[in-house]
Amino acid sequence: MSERHTSKRPIHRKATADHRWDGVDLLPYKEDGRALFKAITRQTLFSDPAMTGELRYFEMAADGFSTLERHEHMHAVMILRGRGHCLVGNEVRAIETRDLITVPPMTWHQFRATQGEPLGFLWMVNAERDKPQLPTADDLAGLKADPKIAAFLESQPTNG
Amino acid sequence: MSERHTSKRPIHRKATADHRWDGVDLLPYKEDGRALFKAITRQTLFSDPAMTGELRYFEMAADGFSTLERHEHMHAVMILRGRGHCLVGNEVRAIETRDLITVPPMTWHQFRATQGEPLGFLWMVNAERDKPQLPTADDLAGLKADPKIAAFLESQPTNG
Repeated sequence: MSERHTSKRPIHRKATADHRWDGVDLLPYKEDGRALFKAITRQTLFSDPAMTGELRYFEMAADGFSTLERHEHMHAVMILRGRGHCLVGNEVRAIETRDLITVPPMTWHQFRATQGEPLGFLWMVNAERDKPQLPTADDLAGLKADPKIAAFLESQPTNG
Repeated sequence: MSERHTSKRPIHRKATADHRWDGVDLLPYKEDGRALFKAITRQTLFSDPAMTGELRYFEMAADGFSTLERHEHMHAVMILRGRGHCLVGNEVRAIETRDLITVPPMTWHQFRATQGEPLGFLWMVNAERDKPQLPTADDLAGLKADPKIAAFLESQPTNG
């Protein structure tokens, strides 16, 4: 569940330069020593006991990537900044600003800032949700059996 | 509750010109003969039985406005396009692209495209929610007793 924010509710938080917001902390994505992600930050934009969803903003620097994971809960994503690629299931897609990406339950997914620029996205998720699963060696081998996915995982996607 | 979308889940819906998306219908805001809103459309970006929240996009043409209303459920809003003003409770605020606005429970609110340009916003809301209440004549009189709010309701806000 991580942090759910307080019930203090500032009515208006102004956007500041470079996809930051007044009163929103910039946090490292996760603490993990296994290099499962790179150069990614998160900001919790909306989280409130009265809301059943949360809205967060994730941003990867150029060449950064999110954790390759899956879980029962869904992700609803809008790209807010830049371009890159994502893996959802066995699909690798080129993604651009304002594109919508749906991650269905128990579907491997990862976002990568492959285009030499930051990639930022909004991420709506159920406030109550299960913990992500990481791929086993067998899962990874299965994914990499697809050359398109193997190339994506080395940040060298073929466009699609 | 209005329409909850199907469980077909396209993974990737591309943004098209002018804040439209592949596979997302453009709908009139509401059907109502009382001129309680003006020049506003909505698009449901994410709605799925597996998600407890919905994400929608509302856009007003220049001089358009949303319904003045209140309800128990909260709104979590990010301005995606343009500038304008909003009323939340007794606060009138100038709002710009990427600003965040929180509408607490049972708080009068309205958005207005006051700057001669479209105003578009993302709107996260609980999938299960109560029906909005409209202001009575007394409610309106109470709001208009504040000159700042009266000016806002005539689309002539003083900046704040």
